[in-house]
Amino acid sequence: MPDVRAANLEIRSVPADPRPVAFDPFHVERELLRRRAFNLRWATVDADVIPLTAADPDFPVAPRIREAIAAHTADGVLGYGPTEGFSGFRAAVAGMLGARNISAHPDRILASDGAASALWAACRAVLETGDEALNFDPVDFLLPHCSQQAGATVVRCPLEDGTGEIPEGALEERITGRTKAILLCNPHNPTGRVLRRDELRRIADLACEHDLVIINDEVWSEIILGELAFTSIASLSPEIAERTITVSGFSKSYGLAGLRIGFIHSGSERLHRQVLEASGAPRTTFGASVLSQVAAEAAILHCDRWLAGFLEHLRAMRAMAVPRLDALPGFACSAPEGTYLLFPDIRATGFDEQTLAQRLHDEARVAVVPGLGRWFGPGAEGHLRLSFATTEEILDEALGRIEKVLG
Amino acid sequence: MPDVRAANLEIRSVPADPRPVAFDPFHVERELLRRRAFNLRWATVDADVIPLTAADPDFPVAPRIREAIAAHTADGVLGYGPTEGFSGFRAAVAGMLGARNISAHPDRILASDGAASALWAACRAVLETGDEALNFDPVDFLLPHCSQQAGATVVRCPLEDGTGEIPEGALEERITGRTKAILLCNPHNPTGRVLRRDELRRIADLACEHDLVIINDEVWSEIILGELAFTSIASLSPEIAERTITVSGFSKSYGLAGLRIGFIHSGSERLHRQVLEASGAPRTTFGASVLSQVAAEAAILHCDRWLAGFLEHLRAMRAMAVPRLDALPGFACSAPEGTYLLFPDIRATGFDEQTLAQRLHDEARVAVVPGLGRWFGPGAEGHLRLSFATTEEILDEALGRIEKVLG
Repeated sequence: MPDVRAANLEIRSVPADPRPVAFDPFHVERELLRRRAFNLRWATVDADVIPLTAADPDFPVAPRIREAIAAHTADGVLGYGPTEGFSGFRAAVAGMLGARNISAHPDRILASDGAASALWAACRAVLETGDEALNFDPVDFLLPHCSQQAGATVVRCPLEDGTGEIPEGALEERITGRTKAILLCNPHNPTGRVLRRDELRRIADLACEHDLVIINDEVWSEIILGELAFTSIASLSPEIAERTITVSGFSKSYGLAGLRIGFIHSGSERLHRQVLEASGAPRTTFGASVLSQVAAEAAILHCDRWLAGFLEHLRAMRAMAVPRLDALPGFACSAPEGTYLLFPDIRATGFDEQTLAQRLHDEARVAVVPGLGRWFGPGAEGHLRLSFATTEEILDEALGRIEKVLG
Repeated sequence: MPDVRAANLEIRSVPADPRPVAFDPFHVERELLRRRAFNLRWATVDADVIPLTAADPDFPVAPRIREAIAAHTADGVLGYGPTEGFSGFRAAVAGMLGARNISAHPDRILASDGAASALWAACRAVLETGDEALNFDPVDFLLPHCSQQAGATVVRCPLEDGTGEIPEGALEERITGRTKAILLCNPHNPTGRVLRRDELRRIADLACEHDLVIINDEVWSEIILGELAFTSIASLSPEIAERTITVSGFSKSYGLAGLRIGFIHSGSERLHRQVLEASGAPRTTFGASVLSQVAAEAAILHCDRWLAGFLEHLRAMRAMAVPRLDALPGFACSAPEGTYLLFPDIRATGFDEQTLAQRLHDEARVAVVPGLGRWFGPGAEGHLRLSFATTEEILDEALGRIEKVLG
């Protein structure tokens, strides 16, 4: 059972507000972003460049998150938090996973300083030198990177060109006696695909058959834009749940990248102990800020309506951006089912991804991410990645500039 | 040069207050600590036990720190910060180190999620399997632990029994062809000794002679209680500075342990690049919360007077506690020159440290840290460690209970 008493104590500190404040699709302060938004974003590009690069939103955080931080800070007690995270935070995360039909337990949740750190600790917990880790191609660089950091050899399974589907038999033929884990990213970055229930079932069956651990990155799981519902692989059966480590964070859905807050949920006590040990949390070399935990807890408990408004806006942006990119000569752009990432295939333009990204930067003054093999795997080459988590005004301006150069 | 423009932007957000609010030696809220203070502290002991265990203060943070957090949160932009930390934070740290006569540069400073993480990254940057790392005995477990985590073999140099001095020739005879680094903790945890200039000079000469890196933990450097001024080893000469990595944090002096904020300053560009690479910061698997950086920056820039008041209070607590512990049968307790840690030798009581700590817990209802060999090294055995960063009322109550049981 979660420690509901402690959770309530945390929650009580947030000012009672019967009407959570809604998402505002017009509220982006470019000047503030130019001072504060780093990691390939506003603060790191020339003043006239629009960055559609790193995937965190331009919008400020939900008011309830600000209030929770202010309330927790007000009394000034900011000493050591518990090793594994506040019980309120862990209970909130367990509730969120429970809503996805994962049989989650607060005692098997570890607060982490971001989803990337969570992935790193999960890989260190499971993988060691000589192991093989199955990764898809293309996929966000962090999954193979963290596999390698843990000492494993990365074996890449190419996704279907165009659709991002997992080809029949493609995983099976890459499993050897040394395969230890399979790393999922669902919804998938950069293709924007939401994995199908039957695909997940096939992966799950393979994991059971070959005794593999599933390391499942769900950092995009709240950004579902299409009709297809999100399925968490750990919800398929207790047997799958037991061998799954779920990692996620609060950067994509709530704009908390700067607070560095995520979590690791282990499907078994044994995996949780391995994760805890690998993380260094018991010896304080790893941990999440108490204010960041409070912010994330408020996000889970009090920001449903804000998130719904954000998703509604993202759907409108998707509807605007996809046909305009798809209409560009040599571009093929499909609508992402999840994430706020566009991943157009630009091979028919005659340019490679690096050259085209540079041209867009220099001529359109729009920064995009080139689908470089060294970042996303060879399957990303010939693609660009663009984030659309911004206002209609900024996105329209960026698309207009791109159309002027390439249209 | 530090990016002064960016630093000013950060600073400007703190409300102007010509009279920084002073430290209040009476302001400790036990009920709040019972909910919030973890890691062997109030929230983790029975309600009637006074914890003098983990070394972070019972006092709330300085008002200017709360204000800085509130100001930065107010506009809601909490996205990705810069990889190496805000330029304002790095400039403030460089200024703080400069005041210690270290030729510090913001560009060689990396913000870290706590001093323990900083130590971990510094060790990973310098040490690898097969290397030997010189550590003292006794010393806080984190220094040998991080050495080992990086793959090195720990070679312990015993400190003088009673005084905590480094015996003549003791380091020299432990240096081999495989010695790669020497780890300092200054002021020293748990002995409370402030290292002498001539001791530091001897260490520095050895480091130069044998081409060793000095990994220097200064997390206690602002808690100087005696007449002896603090000397930072990197201030001795440019040659020493170049081979020194200085790590520190804001838990001990400003009560920010829960925010997980520290830094790593490297004495050369080469060491900084190694630290950056080893940390994982460029790939987002490591990093410090933006709010924590803002809090620490406010601590450095605006809390001088608060810190002076805190130190004044600590000196009074030291004056009260040392003679009372020293007067207990079988106890020998000297006054720490730095830190707020007491480290009485209890061998003449006839009890070992574990048994006596247990008795104090069960009979006096006071929690202290036993000087276990596995935590602090064999040289800590037969000692207890007590923190006195609390109110006079609480400390007096704890000492009274101890006297009743052991006096």
